[in-house]
Amino acid sequence: MSLDFGPAVALSCRECGARYDLGPSFACLECFGPLEAAYDFGTVTRAQIETGPASIWRYRSLLPVPADVATKPNMNPGWTQLVKAGNLGRALGIRSLHVKDDSGNPTHSFKDRVVAIAVEAARNFGFHTLSCSSTGNLAGAVTAAAARAGLDACVFIPADLEQAKIAMARVFGGRLIGIDGTYDEVNRFCSELIGDPLGDKWGFVNVNLRPYYAEGSKTLAYEIAEQLGWKLPEQIVIPIASGSQLTKIDKGFKELIALGLVEDAPYKIFGAQAQGCSPVSAAYKAGHDVVQPVKPDTIAKSLAIGNPADGPYVLDIARRTGGAVEDVTDAEIVEAIQLLAATEGIFAETAGGVTVGVLKKLVENGTLDPEAETVVLNTGDGLKTLDAVSSIAEPTAVIRPSLDAFRAI
Amino acid sequence: MSLDFGPAVALSCRECGARYDLGPSFACLECFGPLEAAYDFGTVTRAQIETGPASIWRYRSLLPVPADVATKPNMNPGWTQLVKAGNLGRALGIRSLHVKDDSGNPTHSFKDRVVAIAVEAARNFGFHTLSCSSTGNLAGAVTAAAARAGLDACVFIPADLEQAKIAMARVFGGRLIGIDGTYDEVNRFCSELIGDPLGDKWGFVNVNLRPYYAEGSKTLAYEIAEQLGWKLPEQIVIPIASGSQLTKIDKGFKELIALGLVEDAPYKIFGAQAQGCSPVSAAYKAGHDVVQPVKPDTIAKSLAIGNPADGPYVLDIARRTGGAVEDVTDAEIVEAIQLLAATEGIFAETAGGVTVGVLKKLVENGTLDPEAETVVLNTGDGLKTLDAVSSIAEPTAVIRPSLDAFRAI
Repeated sequence: MSLDFGPAVALSCRECGARYDLGPSFACLECFGPLEAAYDFGTVTRAQIETGPASIWRYRSLLPVPADVATKPNMNPGWTQLVKAGNLGRALGIRSLHVKDDSGNPTHSFKDRVVAIAVEAARNFGFHTLSCSSTGNLAGAVTAAAARAGLDACVFIPADLEQAKIAMARVFGGRLIGIDGTYDEVNRFCSELIGDPLGDKWGFVNVNLRPYYAEGSKTLAYEIAEQLGWKLPEQIVIPIASGSQLTKIDKGFKELIALGLVEDAPYKIFGAQAQGCSPVSAAYKAGHDVVQPVKPDTIAKSLAIGNPADGPYVLDIARRTGGAVEDVTDAEIVEAIQLLAATEGIFAETAGGVTVGVLKKLVENGTLDPEAETVVLNTGDGLKTLDAVSSIAEPTAVIRPSLDAFRAI
Repeated sequence: MSLDFGPAVALSCRECGARYDLGPSFACLECFGPLEAAYDFGTVTRAQIETGPASIWRYRSLLPVPADVATKPNMNPGWTQLVKAGNLGRALGIRSLHVKDDSGNPTHSFKDRVVAIAVEAARNFGFHTLSCSSTGNLAGAVTAAAARAGLDACVFIPADLEQAKIAMARVFGGRLIGIDGTYDEVNRFCSELIGDPLGDKWGFVNVNLRPYYAEGSKTLAYEIAEQLGWKLPEQIVIPIASGSQLTKIDKGFKELIALGLVEDAPYKIFGAQAQGCSPVSAAYKAGHDVVQPVKPDTIAKSLAIGNPADGPYVLDIARRTGGAVEDVTDAEIVEAIQLLAATEGIFAETAGGVTVGVLKKLVENGTLDPEAETVVLNTGDGLKTLDAVSSIAEPTAVIRPSLDAFRAI
């Protein structure tokens, strides 16, 4: 089998640095640490990138994908809008604020980014079935990408998800298996399945393809920097589920600096959780280096991972960059969804309510500098979590079609 | 008041050609025909366009907007994906098929395109409130755009719309008035309101701002041609609600030819309706030049306009270009939604089921040439019409988190 992962040349252990050949492996044989892609980038210029497509493939020379990736059937996610959020900034007292709005992706969450990379890995390894454990958004992203790429799909979710996420994961034609249990139980089940002959030739995007998959989150860092005019933001607020997205955005910023694509300037990374599933925030506030698992209970189901794999790395990054980790209540999440919608015309899912709610809290408690260039992430779409705004899901008034009736209200 | 509509220099009557100064007018004083924007384009080159932003504003020199439009707070819609639909093409027996997927717009329908132009007109005329009659998608697009632009919003809908569309229209903070009646009754009500002091300083995007608003649909034509490599498709399937979108795509193609931006090659335009609201299709099949209004009864609510203003123009265009108008049943709409999803990973709303269903029917009955370069439009998002797929909105199976349980299924 001839593999082509473009600039990626090996897998390396994030804990002990041991190197492995590129393959469908995810844990270090020496220390059980997580494996991640290691690169030999060569020279990459702004001009090369700027002439690329309006998708994550403009950064293909920084990702574990072949050079001709854009010619194959895939979802072409990314290059979503970085919205200059003047109204929200004024409402919160922040001088310069942008919202990176990933609801513009094909299945309306940032998951399309990571799945697109995993599809290439699945092709490389000759897998016929794409799979995952998911809190919902990932299931839709995987089944859609599999349909487009001509792969089978079989995805696993907690059985109690939002109806919109279930419909979206089913409509693309793959098998959708509900598990009676939490996301963490779904995840453990998938790890067992990989070791079983049943799961042979299956690519679990967030398990045995994770070292490739996770790299997709770096594209958020690249896009934000390029869209700011090849400049890093001074502060960024990122949601925490497994914590992988946050650690990869940090990795992306560091790569841009190392490659000379942006000036080496300090940036602060802030993590955002829902109070009903805030193990990383709790550890941050208690000064701990490790994360104590919790049983999630929050409307922010896409962030409801009680045992976040990258928790310790998130704590390290927040502390090293001078950021913080904070959490908000379900009521604050709903309030923040409405604030973002009414000020910027962006309808976020609950995860976006978490980041905007945390942004507000961090300004109010003086942790975030209102004078610094700030970016906040919206990673999903309000249409998938309609229950959060069910209290306003009806007309202001219902009238007969007459001017008199309208005057009366 | 100094107006800046860029290359647009006047309004002209589509019936009698009478010209008027640019203003918030929509009907000819001579013959009551509809007014539309008239331009003095000057020279426009491919290179100029290609260096523009990844939004409809790359075509600002072909639209009634000021040159600095992209610097103002607006939704920046457009430049959505033209998906090479190899799987769907194979399923239908079409050699080269693309799906223009407008669910990628900010509020996930093509309406963001037309509203963005209307916002600039509202600013030009000093209107403080943005309004519309809507079957749902437009309401969300208007309230979102108003929030971003800092305008008030008051929108009118039939009271029985899908919950997702109602939630989306409310969350952005404007007033949402449900009307006990059909869309056509809502529309008539809005026309009355414009003549009333209550509606003073209100910009009704699809009434008194319609000559500007409607031009936004031309951007679909421009994008499709540019994304095909500056070439017109040979066949295109377009949904019909009021018929405005179809007539403006024809106008856009003709402008590209006149400006020398594409080769002057023939193209056929096909219109698609739901059988439960198919006045244009009925007139086409009967050989009539006028359209007999109907009372809509279909799941394709975004196309449920029983008295389509541009119906006669649609008939003319379909006949002149060698196209046709066809309709499909609600069952065929649902089947087509699932076909598009399972083959291409695109989750369309019912309107997308209409176009794909009609595409299938036109191939099967020999009206559409399977060898010709074909484009089909998806103008909206499946998440807004979940009821259409409610029969599959549950997991394939629900099991305990164990390999034995998985083996058992």
